[in-house]
Amino acid sequence: MSFKELLKSDLEIIERELEKYFEVKDEAFPHLFESMKYTTMAGGKRIRAFLVMMFARLSGGSVEAAIPFACAIEMIQAYTLIHDDLPCMDDDDMRRGKPSNHIVFGEAQALLAGDALLTYAFEVCADNKHVSPSNITKAVSILAKCIGACGTVGGQVLDLEGEKRKLTKEELYHVHDLKTSALIQASALLGCCTSDKGREYFDVAKKYGHNIGIAFQVIDDILDVISDEETLGKPIGSDAESNKTTFLDFYSIEDAKKYAEAITEEACNGLGDGDSAKVLKELAYYLLERTN
Amino acid sequence: MSFKELLKSDLEIIERELEKYFEVKDEAFPHLFESMKYTTMAGGKRIRAFLVMMFARLSGGSVEAAIPFACAIEMIQAYTLIHDDLPCMDDDDMRRGKPSNHIVFGEAQALLAGDALLTYAFEVCADNKHVSPSNITKAVSILAKCIGACGTVGGQVLDLEGEKRKLTKEELYHVHDLKTSALIQASALLGCCTSDKGREYFDVAKKYGHNIGIAFQVIDDILDVISDEETLGKPIGSDAESNKTTFLDFYSIEDAKKYAEAITEEACNGLGDGDSAKVLKELAYYLLERTN
Repeated sequence: MSFKELLKSDLEIIERELEKYFEVKDEAFPHLFESMKYTTMAGGKRIRAFLVMMFARLSGGSVEAAIPFACAIEMIQAYTLIHDDLPCMDDDDMRRGKPSNHIVFGEAQALLAGDALLTYAFEVCADNKHVSPSNITKAVSILAKCIGACGTVGGQVLDLEGEKRKLTKEELYHVHDLKTSALIQASALLGCCTSDKGREYFDVAKKYGHNIGIAFQVIDDILDVISDEETLGKPIGSDAESNKTTFLDFYSIEDAKKYAEAITEEACNGLGDGDSAKVLKELAYYLLERTN
Repeated sequence: MSFKELLKSDLEIIERELEKYFEVKDEAFPHLFESMKYTTMAGGKRIRAFLVMMFARLSGGSVEAAIPFACAIEMIQAYTLIHDDLPCMDDDDMRRGKPSNHIVFGEAQALLAGDALLTYAFEVCADNKHVSPSNITKAVSILAKCIGACGTVGGQVLDLEGEKRKLTKEELYHVHDLKTSALIQASALLGCCTSDKGREYFDVAKKYGHNIGIAFQVIDDILDVISDEETLGKPIGSDAESNKTTFLDFYSIEDAKKYAEAITEEACNGLGDGDSAKVLKELAYYLLERTN
């Protein structure tokens, strides 16, 4: 199967399995499940879920074992979006062309939906019937580290700091390493937690996740300058307008592009040359060359 | 050791171990760890942590294995307090005689401190070196279920609903079963997850946690009416003022007291008559007879 066919077929599985997790569990609060589902099922590229599946394949695990972990990662992604959009954070009324969670359900419910999704992700990991307790324990530990105070949450703290002043190059790098790369790394690593042999691939998964995450952000910064609103699907020039520090404070557009290419190449080193490695390389270059 | 001596000595251990978890892990954001620590270390009875320790003893586990789980429970308790106090929730400026987390650190940081504490709790559980992977997996699953959409978070949703209208007796019961009992149950159950034999005590732990939780809330409702501000340590009559549904909407003070006594007795049925059972009974009656 080609990269795009595999992506499409995996994402159909993920969408279907995610839906199941949001069948109302307690009749006393249907709105809570509705709000959790609203953001989780609102599209997005699902690249992180796909990474879980691909690193499971690469490291000799099964797709069946990867599905719950992939769903958990998408729940985490949804929780971060809901909390990031809240008025006390980025105060965004729109997300992917739809009103943000708190606009539809109110702030209190949105806050709680985020809390519930974060918690649900750990439940789903712990209840993964296709993975040994030892690998589940490893997965929970990795996930918590990647998205906690020294991961995604820490990145968000630094990002808020960056709204008040220009960051140094090192700080900017640190923000994106935590805010973007950490969850991408977690996805790759969780894929490797689907089999005992997977641990041999931890270093490859970390390097891939780290570099893909930074490259992703560099491209985001470039597109915000050179794209147009129709292609990008959101307003351009928003970084300059909000005086946000971006990679273009330290690189020319040409050099930024070269840097993204170099770390994309670096990401793919060590993947080997099997079928799954080939797909992961195609994914990396697909993200590098994207226009939105 | 008497119940009070054991409580005191266990809590010294918990305070010391909790402190260690908040030594700054990343120099880039010291304030995040400071805000996480601020609420977690702000006192409280630590009854939940003590329950983890006691149910470990009751079910044949070790205290050493119980400590990380007990610390995780206190982190969860702190996260719920931080999020509950936020302006979009209960909007409380004070907590245990000190300014709430968001008053000291700002709303965004408080929200993130709560998220980080919730995540850290799962990390601490997963990294418990004194418990087998199989029992860790069970503990993570139980904890997530007790504090998720069908547990504490669901209880909070119902509680917010209850601020808009009077609840029925069944709804009130459901609120407290989720909002208060769920985390107490989780504490007792996590104690039982410290050894393989512990699973035999799951039903006893559930019954104890459920009944203690409801009794705790009934007593809270009574004290809000019959106590005075000095004894209680917080303003009295606040439930009536905010038109909140309480157990006293359905019981006279005398009947409410009798009800709390009956379920405290029920909580203790099945504990057996060993040393740990005796301490758990003393704890139950200590909570029943408390004046603040």
